[in-house]
Amino acid sequence: MEDSLVLVDIGNTNIHIWEEGKIYDIKNPIAFGEDVFYISVNENKEKEFLKLNPSALNLKNVVNFDTSYIGLGIDRIMACKAVDDGLVVDAGSAVTIDIMQNKVHLGGVIMPGISSIKKAYATISPKLDIEFGELNLKKLPQNTQEAVTFGGIGAVVLMINSLKKDKKVYLTGGDGKFLSRYIDGVYVKDLVFRGMLKTIKEDLREGKK
Amino acid sequence: MEDSLVLVDIGNTNIHIWEEGKIYDIKNPIAFGEDVFYISVNENKEKEFLKLNPSALNLKNVVNFDTSYIGLGIDRIMACKAVDDGLVVDAGSAVTIDIMQNKVHLGGVIMPGISSIKKAYATISPKLDIEFGELNLKKLPQNTQEAVTFGGIGAVVLMINSLKKDKKVYLTGGDGKFLSRYIDGVYVKDLVFRGMLKTIKEDLREGKK
Repeated sequence: MEDSLVLVDIGNTNIHIWEEGKIYDIKNPIAFGEDVFYISVNENKEKEFLKLNPSALNLKNVVNFDTSYIGLGIDRIMACKAVDDGLVVDAGSAVTIDIMQNKVHLGGVIMPGISSIKKAYATISPKLDIEFGELNLKKLPQNTQEAVTFGGIGAVVLMINSLKKDKKVYLTGGDGKFLSRYIDGVYVKDLVFRGMLKTIKEDLREGKK
Repeated sequence: MEDSLVLVDIGNTNIHIWEEGKIYDIKNPIAFGEDVFYISVNENKEKEFLKLNPSALNLKNVVNFDTSYIGLGIDRIMACKAVDDGLVVDAGSAVTIDIMQNKVHLGGVIMPGISSIKKAYATISPKLDIEFGELNLKKLPQNTQEAVTFGGIGAVVLMINSLKKDKKVYLTGGDGKFLSRYIDGVYVKDLVFRGMLKTIKEDLREGKK
């Protein structure tokens, strides 16, 4: 039964699928088999998805997660669920940075995503509409490209480093691999799915909730 | 003669005027008297301004400023010119952070401005289209407003604090006063004009250049 398991993460732009350990993205919902579990931050796509997969189970309704944070997105919950202790960085359209300690979520920060920061510069002035270069936080910028790379990507790196303290950093999301070049941490592509699998195993199957 | 001095700082949006110690903004160029000195980062408005003030002197052509930075805006140069040693933060449509040591410019960082960061969040998701709240870097955010305040304004504050080391921080620009609430530094409304006056005194009148 576990072999036919399908996990679906309905995001704002794409729908991320986990199927027998393989991960892929689709733009619009399709019909899967029997054992379908999902999370969603996109109401419209969720409705479409449920028409095609009426028996799919929303893991939001079963997940056990300890936090005082009000309004924590279910995708952030799942990524955090996969980490007992550490800093969980999901770098997508936004960069979310959440702190886990002893399976408890202590709080989290939201920064604009890398592409969103790039767009912000372009909107300010055509002179700032340039590609980011290689980040070097040890050298003061000596031209515009270095200055926006330091102020854009560097700001995200500084934020992560100021929050990590002695914790291990787990990066995921579309820009997670890119950011991991500048962070002492590990990139885990399927972190959200790991949290979903853990939720199925611990909170659903063992009936904790 | 010094009493009739007019300083003009032509920016991207507004034209900032210093006249006998009084500061005000205008949208479009007007004709001033005899002793007019200006800087500009806006070619079109500069042309209009020069038609009305043909004898105005561009301080960009006389300023003596020591830097290895390529492409440093003349407004940043003038703000820095006013500070021999310190961190110079100009918080406008962009936030520029420049480091001065012994009258030498060591480099600088460009971050998106506060209003630009706010717009970036709004573009990512309607859920993030919210006003910033009160920044508290000592408490991990427990809701969306706290999370974007920490990730938006907090990122600027962290960047300034990571660059300041033992230096004094000078803040100016439209959001300079606002930022000074969270920074151990002084807000100097007329920092750019102080640099222009210094340029007139040191580089023009004493004929160093």
